[in-house]
Amino acid sequence: MHTILKSNTKTVTIGADKPFVIIGEKINPTGIKKLGQALVDQNFEYVKYLAQRQVAWGADVLDVNVGHPQIDEAAIMPKVVEAVLSVVDVPLCIDSNEPKILEAGLKVTPGKPLVNSVNGEDKQLATVLPIVKDRGAAVIGMAIGNEGIPATPEGRLAAAGKIIERAAKMGIPIEDIVIDPLVMTVGHNSNAGLVTLKSIELIKKEYGVNMSLGASNVSFGLPDRHSVNSAFLALAVQTGVTISITDPIKLGSSIRAIDLLLGKDANSMRYLKYFRMTEKLRAEEAAVMV
Amino acid sequence: MHTILKSNTKTVTIGADKPFVIIGEKINPTGIKKLGQALVDQNFEYVKYLAQRQVAWGADVLDVNVGHPQIDEAAIMPKVVEAVLSVVDVPLCIDSNEPKILEAGLKVTPGKPLVNSVNGEDKQLATVLPIVKDRGAAVIGMAIGNEGIPATPEGRLAAAGKIIERAAKMGIPIEDIVIDPLVMTVGHNSNAGLVTLKSIELIKKEYGVNMSLGASNVSFGLPDRHSVNSAFLALAVQTGVTISITDPIKLGSSIRAIDLLLGKDANSMRYLKYFRMTEKLRAEEAAVMV
Repeated sequence: MHTILKSNTKTVTIGADKPFVIIGEKINPTGIKKLGQALVDQNFEYVKYLAQRQVAWGADVLDVNVGHPQIDEAAIMPKVVEAVLSVVDVPLCIDSNEPKILEAGLKVTPGKPLVNSVNGEDKQLATVLPIVKDRGAAVIGMAIGNEGIPATPEGRLAAAGKIIERAAKMGIPIEDIVIDPLVMTVGHNSNAGLVTLKSIELIKKEYGVNMSLGASNVSFGLPDRHSVNSAFLALAVQTGVTISITDPIKLGSSIRAIDLLLGKDANSMRYLKYFRMTEKLRAEEAAVMV
Repeated sequence: MHTILKSNTKTVTIGADKPFVIIGEKINPTGIKKLGQALVDQNFEYVKYLAQRQVAWGADVLDVNVGHPQIDEAAIMPKVVEAVLSVVDVPLCIDSNEPKILEAGLKVTPGKPLVNSVNGEDKQLATVLPIVKDRGAAVIGMAIGNEGIPATPEGRLAAAGKIIERAAKMGIPIEDIVIDPLVMTVGHNSNAGLVTLKSIELIKKEYGVNMSLGASNVSFGLPDRHSVNSAFLALAVQTGVTISITDPIKLGSSIRAIDLLLGKDANSMRYLKYFRMTEKLRAEEAAVMV
């Protein structure tokens, strides 16, 4: 199954037979204090820098989130989208819990964007899905039900199914739904990795949809998070995940390696090109910092 | 299925429901010039250092290979085994192509060792399996037939089957056979990773045996080999590999992370302990080098 995203001139195809798709996660003030302040100041140079840097390091799509207590998010979202599009031309992933902020972002985004996200709660489905349908967008559906995050793979399958079926009733095709099977930290629950992998397996078997994963939650609270995140990404891709909202600078090379090992990179061309490109970027960025 | 290895006092159990087992690969003069010279000089201090360091970094078993053109390997093998056993007490993996060198090593090795290796060529089966049987050892069976390394997963399954069946006829139980499905470099053939993963799947389904992998061949000739090796290890473990001959210093943390993610590490105890231990070792080794 292929999920298609588009910018003005670029098409990104998500699918098990395609290279893994990276959504750059960094345009999000949660955890980046400097970005929050820049948005408060309506200074969009830092947004442009984050957009360019992530695309240079291999992001195929950019997530845009403006969640910050001191700003009018619905007013700022379109300005951030325009700042991003002034420097890069990739499909966007408009990220908010608030329908009116999603609408504000989607209105100024060309092509076919991704909406991040809807979950399986009745209220969310009723407010977010119509926006997705009107805009002709694709949407990330979090495997969460009315009672929160299901503890079992079967529960997450049911939550995913509810989203897919509700969307179908509204005329949103199944290929426009990307399910996030959710991952909790293995630091708190040693079975968290297995529960997510089993959820991916069940959802793939039942629906064959594309699946997305935030690959860094899994290691929260643990030391040497990179070893855990990169291993989990490999396990999740082999099980059926096809896209991730992540940091391309940290995980880009692991992702290229996984594609190569799974036979999606003829003559290692993408792997080698990525290595040469990022080696150059690393040297350039080190020179700027000196 | 459990494969049991033993030293004088320690038992290592290999199995899909157990933590992944690491065979330290470093006692092998191929590629370590300093070790080759030490063996020529019959100076075993460096052997002892390599043994202690690998066990400190998490090796469960140690491979012992003395292949070097300038020495009498059958005479040196027992001395190296004795040097190793004078500083660590872990099961050993006696590594040679020559039956008489294997015999020389096995004679002085206590407990239940592993033999590295036999392949599916008639001549090798006829010379190595009797040694394994006489000693009551376990053996690594390389999925190679009379015509060399099979290009297809079905060919590797057949080679593995030939080894298992020939061993059975001689009274070697299937749990004492650890199959190596072989991995070629993806730098030369982009399908090499997939062929190995599919071979693992077929062999697991047909025989349920433990499988071993040399995890670093896969990245030969590529840059940033660590990204490729660690990703491949995750893919291979998820598919059915339970033991690897590898460098514990480079891949120990990835292996602990994979075990954690696959639900084999209650409360992250092993992962956290390994991190604290290796952080200390890293500091100590850095201090010695200054």
